[in-house]
Amino acid sequence: MSSTERQLLTIIAEAVLEQRLIDLVKRLGAKGYSIGHVRGEGATGRAALDFAGPSVRLESVMTDEVVDRVFEALAADYFPHFAVVAWVVPVRVARPERF
Amino acid sequence: MSSTERQLLTIIAEAVLEQRLIDLVKRLGAKGYSIGHVRGEGATGRAALDFAGPSVRLESVMTDEVVDRVFEALAADYFPHFAVVAWVVPVRVARPERF
Amino acid sequence: MSSTERQLLTIIAEAVLEQRLIDLVKRLGAKGYSIGHVRGEGATGRAALDFAGPSVRLESVMTDEVVDRVFEALAADYFPHFAVVAWVVPVRVARPERF
Repeated sequence: MSSTERQLLTIIAEAVLEQRLIDLVKRLGAKGYSIGHVRGEGATGRAALDFAGPSVRLESVMTDEVVDRVFEALAADYFPHFAVVAWVVPVRVARPERF
Repeated sequence: MSSTERQLLTIIAEAVLEQRLIDLVKRLGAKGYSIGHVRGEGATGRAALDFAGPSVRLESVMTDEVVDRVFEALAADYFPHFAVVAWVVPVRVARPERF
Repeated sequence: MSSTERQLLTIIAEAVLEQRLIDLVKRLGAKGYSIGHVRGEGATGRAALDFAGPSVRLESVMTDEVVDRVFEALAADYFPHFAVVAWVVPVRVARPERF
């Protein structure tokens, strides 16, 4: 198979952030995303915001440039204020123009 | 831990494809899979098929040979006709014979 | 973005194990986790335990040390007795102290 590399971004966040996060990744250049729902607990470092309830799990495969932009936005506008965790994994895709 | 490497394939597709995709990965050699449900939007390049609704999320850990076969089948029979995205990540597993 | 590396552990298991697995990863040092629900089939090598029903999907980002401890515990106490599969992927995170 083709070994073109893209970045898979996964964000786990308070459910109330779902639409804002969708808008964020689309605005910054992601061509698609999927949303699932999970429950969990996370260490956010701000006790009042630690989550322990229904959360949204957003995943989106994107280019390096887009993932950098999304992470900068998360760091500036979300990490300080909300219960959000995120991670990035390089993935191989077959049709890179789709992401 | 053991560092045996396998490939984690994730497929996001129209919900109607669920059973076909399960049959596909099993027929081509995957020993297991799990199915979750997500919502999302994706750029398929064929506007009429772009998805924006309930989708199936299949993930399966498999050998390199099996993942290549599944990707070839997706490229031949699914990507041209359906709203499907897929990506592959190398993962470490403890009991390689299970996958 | 920061390129600090952590390990993403994913465990798929019989739904009855949910609370035990949550307790396990927390006790061994994970600072957070999320739980989703999936259906699937898996080759566990013990036919009576092969799963084909609702399963729990736990994911947790953790340090190398914690993931090694969790895998040792899975190998000792879970793999021989239950329908459990698990895999590990290195991920990049922005705030390593959170994991």
